[in-house]
Amino acid sequence: MKQINKIIVVPDSFKGGISSKIFCNISKEAIHNIFPNAQVVTIPIADGGEGTVDAYLSSVGGKKVSTIVKNPFFEDMESFYGILPDKTAVIEMAACAGLPLASGRENPLVTTTYGVGQLISHAVNAGCSRIILAMGGSSTNDAGCGMASALGVKFFDAQNKEFIPSGGTLCEIERIDTHGLKLHIPVTAMCDIDNPLYGKNGAAHVFAPQKGADEAAVKLLDDGLRHFAGLVKDQLHSDVELLAGGGAAGGLGAGAVCFLGADLKMGIQVLLDTNNFDRLLSDTDFVITGEGRIDTQSLRGKAVIGVAKRAKYKNVPVIAFVGDIGDDIDEVYELGVSGIFSINRVAVPYEKAILRSENDLYLTIENVLRFIKNMC
Amino acid sequence: MKQINKIIVVPDSFKGGISSKIFCNISKEAIHNIFPNAQVVTIPIADGGEGTVDAYLSSVGGKKVSTIVKNPFFEDMESFYGILPDKTAVIEMAACAGLPLASGRENPLVTTTYGVGQLISHAVNAGCSRIILAMGGSSTNDAGCGMASALGVKFFDAQNKEFIPSGGTLCEIERIDTHGLKLHIPVTAMCDIDNPLYGKNGAAHVFAPQKGADEAAVKLLDDGLRHFAGLVKDQLHSDVELLAGGGAAGGLGAGAVCFLGADLKMGIQVLLDTNNFDRLLSDTDFVITGEGRIDTQSLRGKAVIGVAKRAKYKNVPVIAFVGDIGDDIDEVYELGVSGIFSINRVAVPYEKAILRSENDLYLTIENVLRFIKNMC
Repeated sequence: MKQINKIIVVPDSFKGGISSKIFCNISKEAIHNIFPNAQVVTIPIADGGEGTVDAYLSSVGGKKVSTIVKNPFFEDMESFYGILPDKTAVIEMAACAGLPLASGRENPLVTTTYGVGQLISHAVNAGCSRIILAMGGSSTNDAGCGMASALGVKFFDAQNKEFIPSGGTLCEIERIDTHGLKLHIPVTAMCDIDNPLYGKNGAAHVFAPQKGADEAAVKLLDDGLRHFAGLVKDQLHSDVELLAGGGAAGGLGAGAVCFLGADLKMGIQVLLDTNNFDRLLSDTDFVITGEGRIDTQSLRGKAVIGVAKRAKYKNVPVIAFVGDIGDDIDEVYELGVSGIFSINRVAVPYEKAILRSENDLYLTIENVLRFIKNMC
Repeated sequence: MKQINKIIVVPDSFKGGISSKIFCNISKEAIHNIFPNAQVVTIPIADGGEGTVDAYLSSVGGKKVSTIVKNPFFEDMESFYGILPDKTAVIEMAACAGLPLASGRENPLVTTTYGVGQLISHAVNAGCSRIILAMGGSSTNDAGCGMASALGVKFFDAQNKEFIPSGGTLCEIERIDTHGLKLHIPVTAMCDIDNPLYGKNGAAHVFAPQKGADEAAVKLLDDGLRHFAGLVKDQLHSDVELLAGGGAAGGLGAGAVCFLGADLKMGIQVLLDTNNFDRLLSDTDFVITGEGRIDTQSLRGKAVIGVAKRAKYKNVPVIAFVGDIGDDIDEVYELGVSGIFSINRVAVPYEKAILRSENDLYLTIENVLRFIKNMC
């Protein structure tokens, strides 16, 4: 038997089922049972929404900072962000502008990202040297104007009156003044969608309905985003009209780029970089990853493939444990996955499978580890 | 990568789903795709019922012999048996006394194993030096008296009148004369159940209802079997009263023992012996096996475990592909199975899983073979 010294576990969550953190714990237990002497590195993956800060802190270390900022309705709330050991701040936009915070009064015409700007400001004042902005799960459609306002950007209407634009008032912006903006550290925005800012595939048409917008509101929001794009092109010389990912988080993607000079990156890449994944790989025997379903969609930058591509480059095998396996996934093997194992151990429908999924995951991982021990 | 030179495929059928032969073909195709230079030995497993002769012929080679014998109702029919290269005859009792042959007129009071005796006689005359008797799928309950009659055993009633007993007339036997019996070659009877001849767990109570017996018939049949056991004990000095497997095929198990001196053996053991499985293992990299469901029941001599125990003795890894995986199967690993993989790739109920099972089996085997290639 080959000696197994080190295993990296870097799983996505199973949507509606096993969280990434629980996947990590289950893997650790199975590894401990079969390879008691192996070192296990766990890197839970968050999707950029709720739980992203915790996921970073649990793999990289660091501390959680609490502070009072504005919620989506400009009301004070206690929010938080994370500071990693290298002074990177990880900020979840959902921590102060997330959809659950608007529960019962969802309305992207009025909700704001102002609190996000306050969190960034707090991090800068705390001495952070870099910002990671996680953009999942937003309740807003303000193109990040609220965030920009909190950081010193001024917006004026036709009467030259200063105001803080929200989704419903983007159209009223006539002039933007960024002289008061104080931010001189790099910002990386985690973005797993490639929707543009406006239009048929834009933020308003695709995402605003689930944030509470009716048809008329969607039209108003989309017009506002289009107006915003024209303004920042003219006045800030920033072209976000066709930017892939500009439509993330109600246009926060575009706002982060034009106000903060942010890099938009796939969340999994930011996470792996922050964890020094490539360096971790060098003495690793294999990587365990997983997600709820692997299929041709997974090929577009999702967790398993993001992990596999990097591991392949370092010749480290990747083992994927998934809920369902879609058809025609041969390309997944070519991209670096050595084996794909469904956790379905009995033929039962999803509603029943979900109830036993944690135990099935444990047994499936244990079986494959034992198989490696016996066969390799 | 370790060189893979030889793989043995020895799967049971998935009840109601994939036949053993199709499992073999699917495995061959997957192996050819991943290890194109590996030698593949396929040994389909039959359960002792219909298809057993074909299964033997396909793995060991030999020829099928056709002949006219009596069906369950003493009518002529064309039946068959197999002659293996080493002059072993493989006889399926179902080929002339099986339940489908009684379709529409099932009645274990009158059906006979007479044709089975004729097949044996034909094989002896053809120069066969050994008989394997496959006992699955019977329509009879005559304790093999029909078979014995065809081979020269005489049965007399209280009026000293010779007759051929069937299930309903076992009670009428007063005297058995075996002087006319001509059979001087060894008989191995394949038997995968351990029910005794009579009583609550006996042939009549457990199996006669599915052969068409009502409650009164079951009582009559059970009385007959009990009477038969007493007679052969007194007159033939053969004690089959408590014999495990005596109740197989309507008491044919007991009849084969007391009339033919048969050895009752688990079907999988007979098949593996006949295929020289232990010798085949010596230069084998791993064994692929499978069955519809692996669970604690599998531990009782079923195919996968039968295969695994022998392979373990020779230190050859066994990989099991199954439909469902039951709970608490850790003992399966201890008995020699290196890995157990369910072919369920999506969470769907059995009715849907069955429709895609052949493709799922192919993809699951291919995934594991690729995994071995990548990892070992």
